[in-house]
Amino acid sequence: MNPIEGHLPTRSPLHDILAPSGIAVVGASADPTKRGYKAMVGLIKDGYRGEIYPVNPKADMILGVKAWPSVTAIPGNPELALLCTPAATVPGLIAECGRRGIKGAVILASGFAETGEEGAALEREMMEKARAHGVRIIGPNTSGIFNLHHRVNLLSLDNVKPGDVGIISQSGNMLLSLALEAQHNGQVGFSTYVGPGNQSDIGFNDYLRYLGEDHHTRVATLYVEGFRDGRKFLEVAREVAAMKPVVVYKSGSTAAGQKAASSHTGALAGSYAMTVDLLKQSGVSVVHQSDEILPVAEGLGLLQKARGKRVAVISDGGGQATIASDRLSEAGLELAELSEATRAKLREVLFPQASTVNPVDVAGSTDANPSLLATCMEIVAADDNVDSVFLVGMFGGYSLRFAESLLGDEMRGAEAMVDLSKATEKPLVIYSLYTPVKPPALRRLHEAGLPVYASIEHAVRVLSALGERGQYLAQARGQSREQSVEPRPELTAMFHAARAEGRDLFEYEAKRLLREHGIEVPLELVVRSEQELTDAAGRFGETPLAMKVVSKDILHKSDAGGVRLNLVGEAAMHEAREAILASCRAYDASAEIEGVLVTPMAKKGVEVILGVIRDPIFGPVLMFGLGGIFVEILEDVAFRSIPLSRQDAESMVEQIKAKKILGGVRGEKPVDKAALVDLLIKVSRIVEAYPALSELDLNPVIVNADGYAVVDARVIVERDSETTDKDADA
Amino acid sequence: MNPIEGHLPTRSPLHDILAPSGIAVVGASADPTKRGYKAMVGLIKDGYRGEIYPVNPKADMILGVKAWPSVTAIPGNPELALLCTPAATVPGLIAECGRRGIKGAVILASGFAETGEEGAALEREMMEKARAHGVRIIGPNTSGIFNLHHRVNLLSLDNVKPGDVGIISQSGNMLLSLALEAQHNGQVGFSTYVGPGNQSDIGFNDYLRYLGEDHHTRVATLYVEGFRDGRKFLEVAREVAAMKPVVVYKSGSTAAGQKAASSHTGALAGSYAMTVDLLKQSGVSVVHQSDEILPVAEGLGLLQKARGKRVAVISDGGGQATIASDRLSEAGLELAELSEATRAKLREVLFPQASTVNPVDVAGSTDANPSLLATCMEIVAADDNVDSVFLVGMFGGYSLRFAESLLGDEMRGAEAMVDLSKATEKPLVIYSLYTPVKPPALRRLHEAGLPVYASIEHAVRVLSALGERGQYLAQARGQSREQSVEPRPELTAMFHAARAEGRDLFEYEAKRLLREHGIEVPLELVVRSEQELTDAAGRFGETPLAMKVVSKDILHKSDAGGVRLNLVGEAAMHEAREAILASCRAYDASAEIEGVLVTPMAKKGVEVILGVIRDPIFGPVLMFGLGGIFVEILEDVAFRSIPLSRQDAESMVEQIKAKKILGGVRGEKPVDKAALVDLLIKVSRIVEAYPALSELDLNPVIVNADGYAVVDARVIVERDSETTDKDADA
Repeated sequence: MNPIEGHLPTRSPLHDILAPSGIAVVGASADPTKRGYKAMVGLIKDGYRGEIYPVNPKADMILGVKAWPSVTAIPGNPELALLCTPAATVPGLIAECGRRGIKGAVILASGFAETGEEGAALEREMMEKARAHGVRIIGPNTSGIFNLHHRVNLLSLDNVKPGDVGIISQSGNMLLSLALEAQHNGQVGFSTYVGPGNQSDIGFNDYLRYLGEDHHTRVATLYVEGFRDGRKFLEVAREVAAMKPVVVYKSGSTAAGQKAASSHTGALAGSYAMTVDLLKQSGVSVVHQSDEILPVAEGLGLLQKARGKRVAVISDGGGQATIASDRLSEAGLELAELSEATRAKLREVLFPQASTVNPVDVAGSTDANPSLLATCMEIVAADDNVDSVFLVGMFGGYSLRFAESLLGDEMRGAEAMVDLSKATEKPLVIYSLYTPVKPPALRRLHEAGLPVYASIEHAVRVLSALGERGQYLAQARGQSREQSVEPRPELTAMFHAARAEGRDLFEYEAKRLLREHGIEVPLELVVRSEQELTDAAGRFGETPLAMKVVSKDILHKSDAGGVRLNLVGEAAMHEAREAILASCRAYDASAEIEGVLVTPMAKKGVEVILGVIRDPIFGPVLMFGLGGIFVEILEDVAFRSIPLSRQDAESMVEQIKAKKILGGVRGEKPVDKAALVDLLIKVSRIVEAYPALSELDLNPVIVNADGYAVVDARVIVERDSETTDKDADA
Repeated sequence: MNPIEGHLPTRSPLHDILAPSGIAVVGASADPTKRGYKAMVGLIKDGYRGEIYPVNPKADMILGVKAWPSVTAIPGNPELALLCTPAATVPGLIAECGRRGIKGAVILASGFAETGEEGAALEREMMEKARAHGVRIIGPNTSGIFNLHHRVNLLSLDNVKPGDVGIISQSGNMLLSLALEAQHNGQVGFSTYVGPGNQSDIGFNDYLRYLGEDHHTRVATLYVEGFRDGRKFLEVAREVAAMKPVVVYKSGSTAAGQKAASSHTGALAGSYAMTVDLLKQSGVSVVHQSDEILPVAEGLGLLQKARGKRVAVISDGGGQATIASDRLSEAGLELAELSEATRAKLREVLFPQASTVNPVDVAGSTDANPSLLATCMEIVAADDNVDSVFLVGMFGGYSLRFAESLLGDEMRGAEAMVDLSKATEKPLVIYSLYTPVKPPALRRLHEAGLPVYASIEHAVRVLSALGERGQYLAQARGQSREQSVEPRPELTAMFHAARAEGRDLFEYEAKRLLREHGIEVPLELVVRSEQELTDAAGRFGETPLAMKVVSKDILHKSDAGGVRLNLVGEAAMHEAREAILASCRAYDASAEIEGVLVTPMAKKGVEVILGVIRDPIFGPVLMFGLGGIFVEILEDVAFRSIPLSRQDAESMVEQIKAKKILGGVRGEKPVDKAALVDLLIKVSRIVEAYPALSELDLNPVIVNADGYAVVDARVIVERDSETTDKDADA
């Protein structure tokens, strides 16, 4: 078991609320079907050591605890109130809580913003009271909370044991499912659970910050339907992920799921692919299948991180070795190439028919001697070519399958694996087909903090998460924030002028913005007169040129006959300009035409697209992909939150499926990726420097072995000044 | 539970071998670590009712059964021998078995073809003896067999119960894993297991045929590392799949896995994507994750098939409803649109806050009344817009989570679900987060043949398999084999001539082959002289033309300067012909130039590729995809075994990811898919008719709204006449 990696310094106000010295249960009940009964039972049975104040005007005692007719009547000073009463009662009760000095309230009732406008009004009323009276709100529409190390179990969940997995889940059933799975696998325990519900006050970022600070939490695990302040969440995730693993399952991965999710919580949901990219950028381990949440959380919490992608497989059956190889490869991991020395050591201990090429197949060598598997693991773990070790097969079941007399040797094997896990910095991931049977050797591994997985698929998902986390931590250590740039007054003025005229930047303005900040944009000249045309012809010489109309009124230049290509020499330029002007006037007689833009014909190369949007949840986001069908049909793009680090930019280029094309196909040379990375970073800096830039679209940019050329640039100007100011603060 | 769909008529010789009246255990032993001990124990403990003949020269009795010094010494007539002795002894023992009238032998030893040339020679020797003496071989290098309904348990597996899942697995560990999983979930039982090992004699197709005939087998489940006779397997699979589900997990889905697999069994492995397409074409339910094999086999065995893709979700938690929606959508299934009548009925029984839009979220309505879930299932099952019903949530756990008093109602709910499963033709797929706990209501569902899944992901995989199988059966029923075509003598002669000259077909010959069989190939004329050029010019008129050199010696026409485009009129044609001839002579002075080919310039449209290969395992296979990066980079292609049915051809076009492009993007009209389907079928017929056709490549074919045009055609001629004859028989 690896040590807990660290915690953030304590700043979250949630510690008091989640580990309160006293709790008021408003709506406490002796009726076992009521939520106010469950909470009482949970507190009493788990031995909560603070004061419990049941509030119920109709009872004197509830489950042996003196009840109070109202919050106001409570004699002590509880820090937390659990409200089990209907939605309509909540605003009034919050005010009462505030007057009583209660710091936080957990509100179970639904019937707020998730149900429509009426509920939203009630939620606003509640929040007004909460702010006026200084009460922090968990929920509403939450399943509740627990904090097992402080014996606060407001859900009255049976059979959950204290442990180090912290859970924030917008679905109560998901918590229940994880709890049952943990109970069943017998190993995972929990620290804190919170159902954030509608997040009217406290949101995912606050809860994550708390888990990052909480000394009982080794892994923060989140089931998210929607973020409220995604940008803040990314910031907190980056801080927490430097200390401990953050596992997120984001629901709504498809349009169907998104629809289902928004009918459930009323939260806005962005594109799934974008959300996943941004979460990963912030160090989050994203899980895509709900049945992988617990295995991945457990593995990340307990196992060493992998320094690379090279996995050594030790197996006692060729079939499962093959399955493991398939899954590893699909997950982007590699079969480590074992050194000759390692293979020689394996040959010393295994039968001649064993395969010592990875995946290692012991081929019967361990049938009478299962602890040999631990020896093999030790041998491959010592190989510098190996980043992680994956045991696949029937370990733990030899004594059941072959002969009871093997139990002793199997237990020795388990002990050796435990010793190895302490001695090596490489993760040992163990799959056994005997996991469901829980034989003694596997129980021993469990106890020592070595998880054993019940499916090859889950084990590989864990290996993959360990590798990603190892890589993230290594990069995060070396990562320095890219220097930002200062906005230039004349360019800021250009934005203001455009906004004043109610328009976006002209293409030449957009390109000037880029050029002034060091982005290579081919020379372009706006030609407004015959004289300027003659000057331009002189500057370009024999270079083949493109010519386009410049007019704020003409958006679709080609449709207007406003584009001419492959012009060489002054005569051709003259003819083209006349034709463009005539055609554009015919297209729209009222269009104000500033002139024509003259630029060299684009180089040959690969078309890529850079786009910037300001996402309502996550703020400014940069998108990168290949042009044409790759963006339009295949949606093969990468997203990163701005600002980008150099690693972010590099990983964007490597992430897209079509990256092969950038590497050179059909005899083409590889494109200059370094120049592309540089371009991504420069765009990120520009977006930071100019809050008035609302959207940006470089489409296409032509990249080839010699660099890139921005062919077309569009900049949308932020119209609403309030939003602009907000962005400036972001 | 649905009835067993049917069985093939009995023809397989395996029935005698797998349900023998007597068994010789050669190498029987009293040493518990020996395989010959295990087999004896398995037979005795399971109460095998035939004669057991332990063969061991060193013992008189083994485990209370009289032993014999040799196979020859056995007094009775066993039908099966299990050989537990080393590889070197096998050929001699097989001869002895044959002389003793033994019909089949299971050979456990490894050390045959999988280990290299020496082992391969031993395997050949063994097969010579087997054929000479009429002994059928299971293995070698097999983990053994069982046939639980006949109490033949040569593996001595504990805790497997007789049932209706038949398993053929090239991995013994995989069998063990499935057995442990089945034992653990408490429901799945098995009929026959065979480890086919090296398949030196009996192969997957024979075993599958047997499972198709076996009355105890409801689902045939196969773990395959490699097929020997893939084409025969596809044929048998088609027959069996019409009767009962065939589930295949094919290992080696990646290059890494393939390498691991071939080091294990020595079997040839084709491309995974191709194998999957061909298996699906033959009605096989392909499983891609090893932990989905048993859930899918169980579901296909027990549940109704879905008539379509529209799933109604009933859930008691919004979060899990969202997860279910995401997974359904990812699997290509749809959320059914519930009718207004259905929604009204749901509103009658549920709380007002429940969502009656699919996914239905009961929102607390069932907390005090879980049997309401069964009512909801019944309501949606009656909706014509619904093809299958998916229950998601905590059913079975209400009495554990809320109040014990709910148990009675939960049991009534289970009973109602069982009744519904009998009354409806739609599948009911149930996921419960309480599955690991096995509460009474879920046990009741199990007993009644309604599987309950432990993960949403697995349940959705089952829904998907049920949908695919339903669709396959519906199509297979309506499917008539496309008429084949007769080879034309003059075209057969054309192949013979090409072969005699040691060359492939010229492009114009290939196009003639296509044209004569009704494929639209633009008019092409081979011009060998000035006179022919003048004639051609007259026929084409003002149509813009392309001109290409015709020479068997020039493969890369463009490189040789042998291609000219956009020619209009006789003068341009004349000039182009002179230039091509000059350039090609300069390129290769020794090249024999027949003339130039003249054809109209291709229409605009989408480039597609049709290719035919003769796969060593699966025989003739047709490939279809979009041209350029779609084939080269994205490998987005579909494969079908030839001959193709119309449905096969239609499904190919629908399968590729880039099908959007065929549907029309960027304002283009959709292409004429019917014409494309027609082309695929015609190519399939041609390949059938001309066994001398080894490979065919139509690249590109331009498709647009008006039809298609075959721009380039290449036909490779089978050089080796033996292979040709074999193909003719295929």
